Amino acid sequence: MTSSPNYKDILKAEENLREILNPTNLIFSEVFSSEYGNQVYIKPENLQKTGAFKIRGAYNMIKNLSEKEKEFGLICSSAGNHAQGVAYSAKELGVPATIVMPRFTPFIKVEGTKKLGAKVILSGNVYDEAYDEAVRIQEEKNMTFVHPFESPDVIAGQGTIGLEIYEELSDVDYVIVPVGGGGLISGISIALKELNPNIKIIGVEPSGADAMKRSLENLGLTYLQKVDTIADGVAVRKPGKLTYSIIKENVDQIVTVDDFELMDALILLIEKHKIISEPSGALALAAISKLGVKDKKIVSLVSGGNIDLVTISSMINKGLVSRGRLLCFSVNLPDTPGQLQRISQILADNNANIIKLDHNQFKSTDRLLNVQLEVTVETNGHKHIDKIMDSILENGYTLSRVY
Amino acid sequence: MTSSPNYKDILKAEENLREILNPTNLIFSEVFSSEYGNQVYIKPENLQKTGAFKIRGAYNMIKNLSEKEKEFGLICSSAGNHAQGVAYSAKELGVPATIVMPRFTPFIKVEGTKKLGAKVILSGNVYDEAYDEAVRIQEEKNMTFVHPFESPDVIAGQGTIGLEIYEELSDVDYVIVPVGGGGLISGISIALKELNPNIKIIGVEPSGADAMKRSLENLGLTYLQKVDTIADGVAVRKPGKLTYSIIKENVDQIVTVDDFELMDALILLIEKHKIISEPSGALALAAISKLGVKDKKIVSLVSGGNIDLVTISSMINKGLVSRGRLLCFSVNLPDTPGQLQRISQILADNNANIIKLDHNQFKSTDRLLNVQLEVTVETNGHKHIDKIMDSILENGYTLSRVY
Repeated sequence: MTSSPNYKDILKAEENLREILNPTNLIFSEVFSSEYGNQVYIKPENLQKTGAFKIRGAYNMIKNLSEKEKEFGLICSSAGNHAQGVAYSAKELGVPATIVMPRFTPFIKVEGTKKLGAKVILSGNVYDEAYDEAVRIQEEKNMTFVHPFESPDVIAGQGTIGLEIYEELSDVDYVIVPVGGGGLISGISIALKELNPNIKIIGVEPSGADAMKRSLENLGLTYLQKVDTIADGVAVRKPGKLTYSIIKENVDQIVTVDDFELMDALILLIEKHKIISEPSGALALAAISKLGVKDKKIVSLVSGGNIDLVTISSMINKGLVSRGRLLCFSVNLPDTPGQLQRISQILADNNANIIKLDHNQFKSTDRLLNVQLEVTVETNGHKHIDKIMDSILENGYTLSRVY
Repeated sequence: MTSSPNYKDILKAEENLREILNPTNLIFSEVFSSEYGNQVYIKPENLQKTGAFKIRGAYNMIKNLSEKEKEFGLICSSAGNHAQGVAYSAKELGVPATIVMPRFTPFIKVEGTKKLGAKVILSGNVYDEAYDEAVRIQEEKNMTFVHPFESPDVIAGQGTIGLEIYEELSDVDYVIVPVGGGGLISGISIALKELNPNIKIIGVEPSGADAMKRSLENLGLTYLQKVDTIADGVAVRKPGKLTYSIIKENVDQIVTVDDFELMDALILLIEKHKIISEPSGALALAAISKLGVKDKKIVSLVSGGNIDLVTISSMINKGLVSRGRLLCFSVNLPDTPGQLQRISQILADNNANIIKLDHNQFKSTDRLLNVQLEVTVETNGHKHIDKIMDSILENGYTLSRVY
């Protein structure tokens, strides 16, 4: 098995990366601090170049390659942040790169990767098939494979985040890190445990993609049959051997969060901090409540922000619903004048701002007498929603909640 | 007339503000640099505490008040960032604050201001009426008025941004600043012209709210009858006397941008930098193309990020449409089997990802023979849209574009 990188490798990576990184200084979060009763800091790697931490590992590895290893170019498989990290780094360092992406990768991600100068090959229906194809091409063409996590140089690159956190906040108590393949937390834990073994390193996985947590429980690397989570960036079926061995050694605990908890954290991050994260990026914020601690200094790593605008917009809407900030209901109205006015009055009395109205004679369940009105209003939490629904019921209408 | 603050006042403000500010380091923007052929840096005041630069002026002014001036509390009028800056600063400094907001201020902004501990009074249908009421209460109760821009201490507070820009990038060529009442650019221009008079200070206003630009052209303070812009944060009818006199002296040029240019910049900022700005916050990015310069070091100040999530989501959708990233069209299909399949095939062949389908027998313009299909697809620019529409036409369908 490949051997684990050590603290010195991470210091060297820091040297290598100096020429390329954006600074991502810690952001103290008033909202998450007060929400969870701790002092919460965000390490915003979503503001990193290419929108994620992945550039650190990719650039460090490529920078360390010999001329011979670069001769036939680089190859990797990825549908996400690793693709962009490799493409950007390869271009900066003047090495040709080929990225194999699953066939159904969104067009915009494919274009984004091409724009960074990489050659893109679409192959396979799922990630594993793209990976197999990348390995096949690599062997055929004698290229160098850039693995997203199972590589000491990649892990050392990600570890530089640990150095930066310690430099800004050496008395940190907990550092929470999302776990997909495990490269990120491996690197960070090596750095921080060397600097101060008392700093607790906490991993977080979605409850629908908890391969590393299960591996630790099973005392052996465990693969999942399938993954099910909105956090596509860490939806990994097969974590790494090398990362497993490092995590077993260095990581204090792995916790899981479900998609609803994740969405709540994501929305709070977007709304209060004005910064956008991809779903997996908000895992380490959602996980704070799982620690059961108070008054601690906690750094939550926001790992990436690569999410397309259409998805952001639909996530925001879902998140607003889950936080009680949007209510959509339908109500059957007798087909007589003044009904719409009555409903409008009830909503105005309850401070509910109407966003959308759909007044449809065809949709009614009782087609002859009633019209169905579907109303979407902006609300201020679940209690506000209850109050609005009660008022409508009290006025003699029957309503059904759409979402 | 109140006198202009000087450079020393700004240095003193920096001292006052040290205890309160978030750092907002410059962010080098690859995307805006390559888009405009300059080296573009963002000064992200949307990441400032309370989500905007306004806290600087408010806190500095309140901190400088005498005990006597604080005795009966503070009052101001605002529907936006100034309200939050004052509320937060007053709470930190232990002074009671009353904020008069127009009656139709969104519920969520009212709640947000209350949460910061301020007393909120809803009065008037537009900002000017809320302002008049605030002045009335101030006189009646002998309170201290915190004006959003017409105050030397407020201007000096905003001026600290100039010091910070210079400290990080002393060889900057252009600093572009949004202009509403004019307090922000007044402070920044005093600081920077003292440090280096060769730095060009450029103001930017929406073309539908260009009172300061007209004032300079008319050689006298000019009020607008009405304002019309999506940039509500700078939709000011009456700029300040004091700020006008400072701007006339210090500012090299004021340019305007229209709402479409603004929306494009806003979407690019959200998509590529993963940070959210309110519409007025993106003015200084939209303005770069108006300078007609290349290879210059430009700092664009992103002034604030206070925009509610429902609005973000609808702005994103509008922005996607204006950038050719969403296409919605309707097409009448003969009511025979296989038609939906044909349309799907054409879209798949054109790499257009379907987001929404509405297949409605009632909506057809020719009710007896056809059904109307309304399709929303994700696209990759206006050329891509043309290609898709051509393909559908070539296949013998008649389509009409919805947006």
